[in-house]
Amino acid sequence: MTQWRMVEGGVSAPKGFRAAGIAAGLKPSGASDLALIVSEGDAIAAGIFTQSQVRAACVDYCRQRLEAKSVARAILCNAGQANACTGSQGWVDTIASADLVAQALGIPADAVMVASTGVIGQCLNMAALRQGIPAVVAALSEAGSAAAAQAILTTDLVAKSGAVEAEIAHRPVRLGGIAKGSGMIHPNLATMLAFITCDASISPPLWQAMVQRAAELSFNQISIDGDTSTNDSLIALANGASRTPAITEAGPEADLLEGMLTAVCTHLAKAIARDGEGATCLIQITVQGTAHDEAARQIARTIAGSSLVKSAIFGRDPNWGRIAGAAGRAGVGFDQGDLRIQLGEFVLMDGGQPQPFDRSAASAYLKQAAAGAYLQDDTVDIIVSVGTGSGRGQAWGCDLSYDYIRINAEYTT
Amino acid sequence: MTQWRMVEGGVSAPKGFRAAGIAAGLKPSGASDLALIVSEGDAIAAGIFTQSQVRAACVDYCRQRLEAKSVARAILCNAGQANACTGSQGWVDTIASADLVAQALGIPADAVMVASTGVIGQCLNMAALRQGIPAVVAALSEAGSAAAAQAILTTDLVAKSGAVEAEIAHRPVRLGGIAKGSGMIHPNLATMLAFITCDASISPPLWQAMVQRAAELSFNQISIDGDTSTNDSLIALANGASRTPAITEAGPEADLLEGMLTAVCTHLAKAIARDGEGATCLIQITVQGTAHDEAARQIARTIAGSSLVKSAIFGRDPNWGRIAGAAGRAGVGFDQGDLRIQLGEFVLMDGGQPQPFDRSAASAYLKQAAAGAYLQDDTVDIIVSVGTGSGRGQAWGCDLSYDYIRINAEYTT
Repeated sequence: MTQWRMVEGGVSAPKGFRAAGIAAGLKPSGASDLALIVSEGDAIAAGIFTQSQVRAACVDYCRQRLEAKSVARAILCNAGQANACTGSQGWVDTIASADLVAQALGIPADAVMVASTGVIGQCLNMAALRQGIPAVVAALSEAGSAAAAQAILTTDLVAKSGAVEAEIAHRPVRLGGIAKGSGMIHPNLATMLAFITCDASISPPLWQAMVQRAAELSFNQISIDGDTSTNDSLIALANGASRTPAITEAGPEADLLEGMLTAVCTHLAKAIARDGEGATCLIQITVQGTAHDEAARQIARTIAGSSLVKSAIFGRDPNWGRIAGAAGRAGVGFDQGDLRIQLGEFVLMDGGQPQPFDRSAASAYLKQAAAGAYLQDDTVDIIVSVGTGSGRGQAWGCDLSYDYIRINAEYTT
Repeated sequence: MTQWRMVEGGVSAPKGFRAAGIAAGLKPSGASDLALIVSEGDAIAAGIFTQSQVRAACVDYCRQRLEAKSVARAILCNAGQANACTGSQGWVDTIASADLVAQALGIPADAVMVASTGVIGQCLNMAALRQGIPAVVAALSEAGSAAAAQAILTTDLVAKSGAVEAEIAHRPVRLGGIAKGSGMIHPNLATMLAFITCDASISPPLWQAMVQRAAELSFNQISIDGDTSTNDSLIALANGASRTPAITEAGPEADLLEGMLTAVCTHLAKAIARDGEGATCLIQITVQGTAHDEAARQIARTIAGSSLVKSAIFGRDPNWGRIAGAAGRAGVGFDQGDLRIQLGEFVLMDGGQPQPFDRSAASAYLKQAAAGAYLQDDTVDIIVSVGTGSGRGQAWGCDLSYDYIRINAEYTT
């Protein structure tokens, strides 16, 4: 039973958070490019960052900051320059950015988290930031989430935002988030960023563990083209402004909060997958019957990432062979005689063997499911069963279209 | 110093091998579709097969056969039906195929290896095989390798073959091979098959170990689109017909033979990558500076498999950011300050930071390197260094073009 409801307001839906997004001149286009999220009081901070060996300075900075202290007040995010592959200058500029925000807000410099997205190899435009940071601070408001969600985009087609509300000890608690996609439309600009705010009160280790688990079920289960970025960051702040009792151990309140967090992260992750480069639809893969959930997630991820499955869906082709092939090579053991593949309502394969099905009706389902791009019902559902275990997992991806090639081949650094 | 030379003749270049390929009516097109390779005497047999959980009956059959006995006389390979996802009937048909070959040749049934490639979910056309097997036996000849190489193809554009010769104890020793690609042009027909013959005398465990190592350096280092097949098989026969001294332990002779085997496997693997679906060029990635070779191979594989790198090369774009991104996420630790990326003669990145280079000249290099499709010089060279370790590895791939999408989206099962 879902115990929460969707609300408006994104990252400024929870109490005690303000946000802003402005055009600071970092993007050559003049579009909105500087976002700030601020908590009125200290917030418990958790973060997850790219596993890549090639990382932006801000990623190393945030990781070190969170290792030292799990409290923060603000998240600054710029678009335009990724500040990755920029050597020692990148590090200096990240620290200077945090200092500028701290001065403008009158908070300690180590209370500021920094994220960047944009062109790899380009240093931050510090002149623009020196002007922009006081301006973005001045623009902070409780209605500023939409502007912030817009300012963190690079080549995404749509802003991504969500928030939910529930009751803890009869008081409202809210959790919101904004994200930008690993759209890979211009891959040097491609980064997955997500910022979560929450007004519950929670202990740092519980919050970090929840954020980790929620990311595993959501952001880690989407695949655009298998490439990951130098700048991928998820930063989550919980400031306790709801004045609900502090959650310090496992129990119903922790479960509720984790459910809210996972719901918002999954909503944002699906929005990112749906906005993949050249995508015409969202593909949702549900795998069941494994020994444990992680095995099911692994199979689901492999199917979501298969170029063959993705191009078949673009061709509106109910191609069970490609789905079976991807499931088989996922690195999870199963008996091929147990393999069952369903596409929407159509059973394509059962007992490891192809089943008769109405091919034109299945193709029509694919056309119909994909027709409402960027609406909630543009989802192609693939359900795969590999045995009788209780493991279950989902992953999301998008189809692979001519536009992916056009966009990626014709883009020049 | 290379101690061997290329020779003609493919799998029938080594002494005591005959081969044939005929049109047996398995392919609807009427094209050549049944190949047979036969050794005049018992040959030491080694094999490597798909790791997928969804496997064709012939793969399980060969694996079981080789576990029981490391000697074989013949390899039968059909194209047209993959005999995968065909349940118990698939198993019955595989055994019947081996029996038919054994009867026609007057050899034991357990001396026959079987491989299939074609449409998943389709059983073997046994009526056609019953007619075709005596015919392909009748067609066997010492000049039959080219016909066999043609008959194992499905959607490959070119036949793939190679052979080398060297001296062991002043007598000529030869090793040859044919292969078909994981072309993924029609993915349900996509299988990587390679058959190796050799007239050296070698002990079974040495031969299996050599074949395993050679495959790791060659077939396991190519990437078309990351998908693997239900039917992938590498089978290698060494019949001793050269009458050279038996190789039973490590030493110069074993090293020479392994070098020959690796050279032929690498030649075939590169030919497969070059013939990838929609490919316009071969991409060769060389990685150095890791602690050990496997780490370098892993980085090279990741770059070769990156859709972003592949589409950049198709766009003739010297995009160092995508190469750095792929290297960074390969799962191998390195200091990003040590990263150096070279494209042909152009140094794109050094010390972890982008370098100035002549962008139009680098793009011209890409155009030129890719111009001679299917010739030896159509190779785009990417050289990546990640440190000062002695580890080194190579991988091969192809670019990602509009034709990949067209082929894969418009193909209908």
